[in-house]
Amino acid sequence: MPLSADAIWKRLRAVRDQQPLVHNITNFVVMNNTANALLALGASPAMVHSSDEVEDFVALSQALVINIGTLYSEQIAACKLAAAKANAVGVPWVLDPVGAGATPYRRAASAALAALGPKAIRGNASEILTLALEQGQGKGVDSTRESGAALEAARRLADRTGAAVAITGAVDYVTDGRRAIALENGHPLMARVTGLGCSATAAIGAFLAVEPDAFTATAAALAAFGVAGELAAASAPGPGTLQVALLDQLYSLSEQRLGEKYRCRNLTL
Amino acid sequence: MPLSADAIWKRLRAVRDQQPLVHNITNFVVMNNTANALLALGASPAMVHSSDEVEDFVALSQALVINIGTLYSEQIAACKLAAAKANAVGVPWVLDPVGAGATPYRRAASAALAALGPKAIRGNASEILTLALEQGQGKGVDSTRESGAALEAARRLADRTGAAVAITGAVDYVTDGRRAIALENGHPLMARVTGLGCSATAAIGAFLAVEPDAFTATAAALAAFGVAGELAAASAPGPGTLQVALLDQLYSLSEQRLGEKYRCRNLTL
Amino acid sequence: MPLSADAIWKRLRAVRDQQPLVHNITNFVVMNNTANALLALGASPAMVHSSDEVEDFVALSQALVINIGTLYSEQIAACKLAAAKANAVGVPWVLDPVGAGATPYRRAASAALAALGPKAIRGNASEILTLALEQGQGKGVDSTRESGAALEAARRLADRTGAAVAITGAVDYVTDGRRAIALENGHPLMARVTGLGCSATAAIGAFLAVEPDAFTATAAALAAFGVAGELAAASAPGPGTLQVALLDQLYSLSEQRLGEKYRCRNLTL
Repeated sequence: MPLSADAIWKRLRAVRDQQPLVHNITNFVVMNNTANALLALGASPAMVHSSDEVEDFVALSQALVINIGTLYSEQIAACKLAAAKANAVGVPWVLDPVGAGATPYRRAASAALAALGPKAIRGNASEILTLALEQGQGKGVDSTRESGAALEAARRLADRTGAAVAITGAVDYVTDGRRAIALENGHPLMARVTGLGCSATAAIGAFLAVEPDAFTATAAALAAFGVAGELAAASAPGPGTLQVALLDQLYSLSEQRLGEKYRCRNLTL
Repeated sequence: MPLSADAIWKRLRAVRDQQPLVHNITNFVVMNNTANALLALGASPAMVHSSDEVEDFVALSQALVINIGTLYSEQIAACKLAAAKANAVGVPWVLDPVGAGATPYRRAASAALAALGPKAIRGNASEILTLALEQGQGKGVDSTRESGAALEAARRLADRTGAAVAITGAVDYVTDGRRAIALENGHPLMARVTGLGCSATAAIGAFLAVEPDAFTATAAALAAFGVAGELAAASAPGPGTLQVALLDQLYSLSEQRLGEKYRCRNLTL
Repeated sequence: MPLSADAIWKRLRAVRDQQPLVHNITNFVVMNNTANALLALGASPAMVHSSDEVEDFVALSQALVINIGTLYSEQIAACKLAAAKANAVGVPWVLDPVGAGATPYRRAASAALAALGPKAIRGNASEILTLALEQGQGKGVDSTRESGAALEAARRLADRTGAAVAITGAVDYVTDGRRAIALENGHPLMARVTGLGCSATAAIGAFLAVEPDAFTATAAALAAFGVAGELAAASAPGPGTLQVALLDQLYSLSEQRLGEKYRCRNLTL
């Protein structure tokens, strides 16, 4: 097995034990839910986005999350400052190129940030296709493509940027250009809750704080998140309950439940 | 019956089938809940507010929602750009003049936007009185008037702007200047959850995307929203549970439940 | 007993009866939850932050809440305008110096605001130590110190600013420099929900609107909030459910439950 349940559990326990400070520059839609997902996982989140302090703050942090969901020009500047400082002081960071292909403004911003050296990039198929191939427009912030269709693009993006690249959807794919894995947990109802992809990206940030291998950190984070989501959806009558139950499941996920539910496939590139 | 349960159901099904992309320029308080309400209804929401991209984004969308809740000067500029582009490319849009009468700044912004040709306007009684008559100050963002008191004002506002105008409260009223209807679903506890009016406005946006007649779209959206809220409140011990249950009900609302619960009165102007 | 359950209940009932308009200039992470907490308590919240209208808005309000969580330069300017106007028209205000010690930018902003005459200041131990003693850096926005360790600092800060100062944590402490109380309700799971401290600060704002003695208002608000949180946590499997149940408990808190659960200790300074 390319990534065992034991390996995932070990990183989740490390997040809970070390409670890493995760600095987020993220969008206004998901700030609350992202902070709550990180707290439920055991991390210590902070949302700090002013150019007057992002460099100071990222230097105190164990990971940085950059998400362009509700992009505006001051935020792009702050993201660039924070990413450069993170690189300088050795803080790993993850990029979420929300809606990358929807507009020229968003395409340019996501390409510029991807070129700055993230340890991981997570998007839906349309976003990863856009970043990798400069196509795949998407529908607003939702994907119009299956996640598998973007795997070859993800490999090329990983090669070009050096990042572990994750494509999330019905199945999640992670590759660093050498290794690749398909993660099969999750539930269709998760797509009816806004910003769960953004929360998954933040989870990657928390795992990068405790695991230097970006492929392992990214896959372990998405696996844990997918199992929690699947458990939450099992008894949810709708997306409102799912959102609440997901936080409970991230908080209470046990080694046993993870071992019972986790499903993956090794892929050859 | 001025608007049958069948007519409402047909539009709700169209939203679920067509999954329209609904572009929102809205306030920071409700972004998450608005996105979740739209997803629960079956639409595809996006929150995009930078002047650098709103024109490009609205051109990809099937409807636009403008809400001035946490107004600031760059946002007013972005709203005007987006509204003008929406008009140019034939994308219907709805205005939510939150707290319209509370300050001169808010009064000026809401009047300017109302003059730009929204297909629908939704507010509480104080907000609609302010826009129509330049009175009715409200209490912050809450109304100090019953919704029925504003019906005549709504008719005048509809005549002046060409929009379908909705006044929501204990009873919701919708008029386009020729037709008028009173929608009697909902529950008092809904007033204890922030931003449900904003979610209702976003629902109008989703229905405008599938129904060109603005009066029908507006009334159908508010009826579906009111029934879902009433069902959610029936078993909610408080506003926290209600907010969650409302999303579940928007997601799972069936033709049968809608038919059983829907109540309206035809009005003559 | 320094503050009786009866005294707390009387102020809570006054909030429910008077429904004070509480103007919030707060952070993007907690806007929704803060508004919902205020609505659940019975107050009428508004989130208004543009320098173009904060002075007009605060003059309509019964209390002002200033929270620097997601600070940026325009917001600092708006906070200063709003605080000055609040002072001029006699509207009480409360300051939440989120992450005060994390960066020089945040330290300067929180010190500047604390000097403007808030009636109350609420923070965690690190934040209060920073404001009082210019030390106690914290870990991002979380405290690295027990709340009791900051009590002497709180007393000095109260003396210097004239504000009632609250340090929240496993135990909450409130002092105005003369009186001091330890409030022992709450639950450890509350620390896993983002922004409950911010909601507690907003509750102080609502109680300041109905009670001129800032020490009594601050302690009563935190006591009611702590009891509601404890009741909510009692049956919550995780932080997602706790967040929802807290709103239900704030809404439905009865004199009897408050009397049964409330625990405090009088302190001598």
